[in-house]
Amino acid sequence: MGKIPVWNPAIEFIEREALEQLQLARLRQTVEWALKTPFYHQRLTEAGLTRPEDIASLRDVRNIPYTTKDDLREAYPAGLLAVAPEQAVRLHTSSGTTGMPTVIYHTRRDIEHWTELVARCIVATGATARDVFQNMTHYGLFTGGLGLHYGAEQVGMLVIPASSGNTHRQIQLMKNFRTTVVHATPSYLLHLYEVLVNDGMTREQLCLRKAFIGAEPHSEQTRRKIEELFGIKAYNSYGLSEMNGPGVAFECVYQTGLHLWEDAYILEMIDPRTLQPLPEGETGEIVMTTLQRQATPLLRYRTRDLSHLMSGHCPCGRSHRRLARITGRSDDMLIVNGVNLFPSQIEEALMKIPEVGTNYLIQLEKRGSMDRLVVKTELCAKLFMGDRQTLDDLRERIGERLRSAILVKPAIELHQPGSLPVSEGKAQRVLDLRPAF
Amino acid sequence: MGKIPVWNPAIEFIEREALEQLQLARLRQTVEWALKTPFYHQRLTEAGLTRPEDIASLRDVRNIPYTTKDDLREAYPAGLLAVAPEQAVRLHTSSGTTGMPTVIYHTRRDIEHWTELVARCIVATGATARDVFQNMTHYGLFTGGLGLHYGAEQVGMLVIPASSGNTHRQIQLMKNFRTTVVHATPSYLLHLYEVLVNDGMTREQLCLRKAFIGAEPHSEQTRRKIEELFGIKAYNSYGLSEMNGPGVAFECVYQTGLHLWEDAYILEMIDPRTLQPLPEGETGEIVMTTLQRQATPLLRYRTRDLSHLMSGHCPCGRSHRRLARITGRSDDMLIVNGVNLFPSQIEEALMKIPEVGTNYLIQLEKRGSMDRLVVKTELCAKLFMGDRQTLDDLRERIGERLRSAILVKPAIELHQPGSLPVSEGKAQRVLDLRPAF
Ligand SMILES: [Zn+2]
Ligand SMILES: [Zn+2]
Repeated sequence: MGKIPVWNPAIEFIEREALEQLQLARLRQTVEWALKTPFYHQRLTEAGLTRPEDIASLRDVRNIPYTTKDDLREAYPAGLLAVAPEQAVRLHTSSGTTGMPTVIYHTRRDIEHWTELVARCIVATGATARDVFQNMTHYGLFTGGLGLHYGAEQVGMLVIPASSGNTHRQIQLMKNFRTTVVHATPSYLLHLYEVLVNDGMTREQLCLRKAFIGAEPHSEQTRRKIEELFGIKAYNSYGLSEMNGPGVAFECVYQTGLHLWEDAYILEMIDPRTLQPLPEGETGEIVMTTLQRQATPLLRYRTRDLSHLMSGHCPCGRSHRRLARITGRSDDMLIVNGVNLFPSQIEEALMKIPEVGTNYLIQLEKRGSMDRLVVKTELCAKLFMGDRQTLDDLRERIGERLRSAILVKPAIELHQPGSLPVSEGKAQRVLDLRPAF
Repeated sequence: MGKIPVWNPAIEFIEREALEQLQLARLRQTVEWALKTPFYHQRLTEAGLTRPEDIASLRDVRNIPYTTKDDLREAYPAGLLAVAPEQAVRLHTSSGTTGMPTVIYHTRRDIEHWTELVARCIVATGATARDVFQNMTHYGLFTGGLGLHYGAEQVGMLVIPASSGNTHRQIQLMKNFRTTVVHATPSYLLHLYEVLVNDGMTREQLCLRKAFIGAEPHSEQTRRKIEELFGIKAYNSYGLSEMNGPGVAFECVYQTGLHLWEDAYILEMIDPRTLQPLPEGETGEIVMTTLQRQATPLLRYRTRDLSHLMSGHCPCGRSHRRLARITGRSDDMLIVNGVNLFPSQIEEALMKIPEVGTNYLIQLEKRGSMDRLVVKTELCAKLFMGDRQTLDDLRERIGERLRSAILVKPAIELHQPGSLPVSEGKAQRVLDLRPAF
């Protein structure tokens, strides 16, 4: 691999102890900023936190109440603004398609910090000022476009602000300017490849070497598919608008989990049901506290994104811990007889069984005081013709596979191909028939 | 008016003599940069210009050949790149909808210079860091979005990167964040007002004070209409992608013509037919030479935009000369018996005559060796009922009005309302029936 590419060695290789001291100092500063907002002034006072000094150690972050998406909605438009309006130079709002919008403000220094985080991410993948970077994500209020744009410009890449859409033109730009790095959603890159092939072109006519993929959940198989189709490396990007946007966590050249910049965020993993901290390695909800954002500090924000912290050290030597790929959203979490599980875990296990078809349904029922989990799955066409014993064996095998994945053994129903309901648009995979309280 | 708002007093109030010295030094530097490009190396060598010192005085700019849009197309994608690719941090391409695309590259310093020019424009209108700026133009390869965005961020305004479209959301953002300044095309602002009124809102529910309008030709009446509807001031912006984009020329608080930043551009006005320089005050084609852009220097670029230089001094005291509103494109120029005229001149004169309806047609014919100009115009509904004498008088009056506007007396045909052909989309106003050579 040679020398590890790095943007800011002093902070990226910082010793854990120094990092934690920095986090504590910045957490106190953030609490001071937060107390200037109407929202946190009330919330923190109720929790007995009225001065930055009330945070004696990093562990005291746990004395701070959680902040939720609903809190952000209620504080819209100015309840979380911690500076005078004339100190803010930017705001980004969520689209508000699923309810009231939310807004994050930035001072000039906030933008500089955000830009630095994105620059670190870009350089961690081995990209340099010699790369030609085509940014295929939407520019504007959506943070993906401007976020990567500023970081790439900071690094000194040749930035093509292509924005989203117009695939033929994207390909033309890639050819004409010998684009080496793109930023896009994984599904858009798969679509672009189809258009490329339909236009009678091959990947050899491009100079592409890397893709930054994010903004939608995707599996490791999808990443590998993109890498194989284009003959490139694809790096996972994690960000969310409440934490600026892109630049929160990114894979380095080793592609073994996403380094989360802990000088900028305090990371906690919690059980989304009990809200208790989880030990390293256990899957739970990511909770983050901003450490550098003056205009809109957020304390213990419940991201609703699910992941786990990876143990051990990355070969790159960065001291910032790594998140595993996002596996779902805590909104999706099912509780079955007290056990937390996620539809994505069931899907992942099912899709590893060759006999299983593409459609399945998860059904929850109540039997007396107990929950009952039923997984209905179609079989591949040629396999449904098996005799009764074969099908019984298969049912047992699927049940055991799922038990080892989710710690609950569901009842398995096998269905003919094409017999389960098909949804238009986003698939409805879960049917919860349990009575509400 | 009080104190004149200004971003960079040293350069905006610079003495003409010092400005011209600066222009000469920068012109030489620009020629040196240009000689590094394949395109200009050949073009300038043919013209006997092989060293910056060959430019002895500012007047020597006239020894440099013109550069045209077609030159840019032929030089695409890298024939006009004057730096090593890794020194470029941005490129913007034209859409290429009307032919081959064109491209302009920027170094980091080029972007800084562009940003400074836009900041000067914004501050010249009286806008400050206390303003909330909603940028309603498209972000991405189109230069209007990112150009104004960077300038506004430099000034320290609170920038809402709304991008174009979604009018209901634009209005919501304007209300929620008390937007004081918007950037949009004039036609979009008129549309937004309609939506506002249709939604049962009034301008009093907004905090709007200023609009920056550009990116499409518009009349003084349109500007005044925007000002009256919203109860704001609207400032004309002039820019073109070949000269970065916005930031070329802008109105100051006095709204008497657009100051063109002459430390960044050498401005010439030429007769688009003879290519000879025009005296101050005469309408012709704007020709510009970049003075600060290292990555893609352009020498004597024929913008095809028509305007004239305003005489006298602006009350604001800026020494940079003022362009009048753009009146059309040299592509549109008609030559009638050796006289240059533009459809826009005819339209402007016609629209001042109350009896004239909304549709008209300009027709050119050949009678022997002479050109014949016919202007066909519809009359307002209630007026076409007049007697023969009334119509004859009106025809004579229209002919005289046009003669004083265009120095040619056309034949006038009066038509019933609704009788002239109506085009879908962009109106076809000119029918040239003269045989081609
Ligand atoms: Zn690493
Ligand atoms: Zn002025």
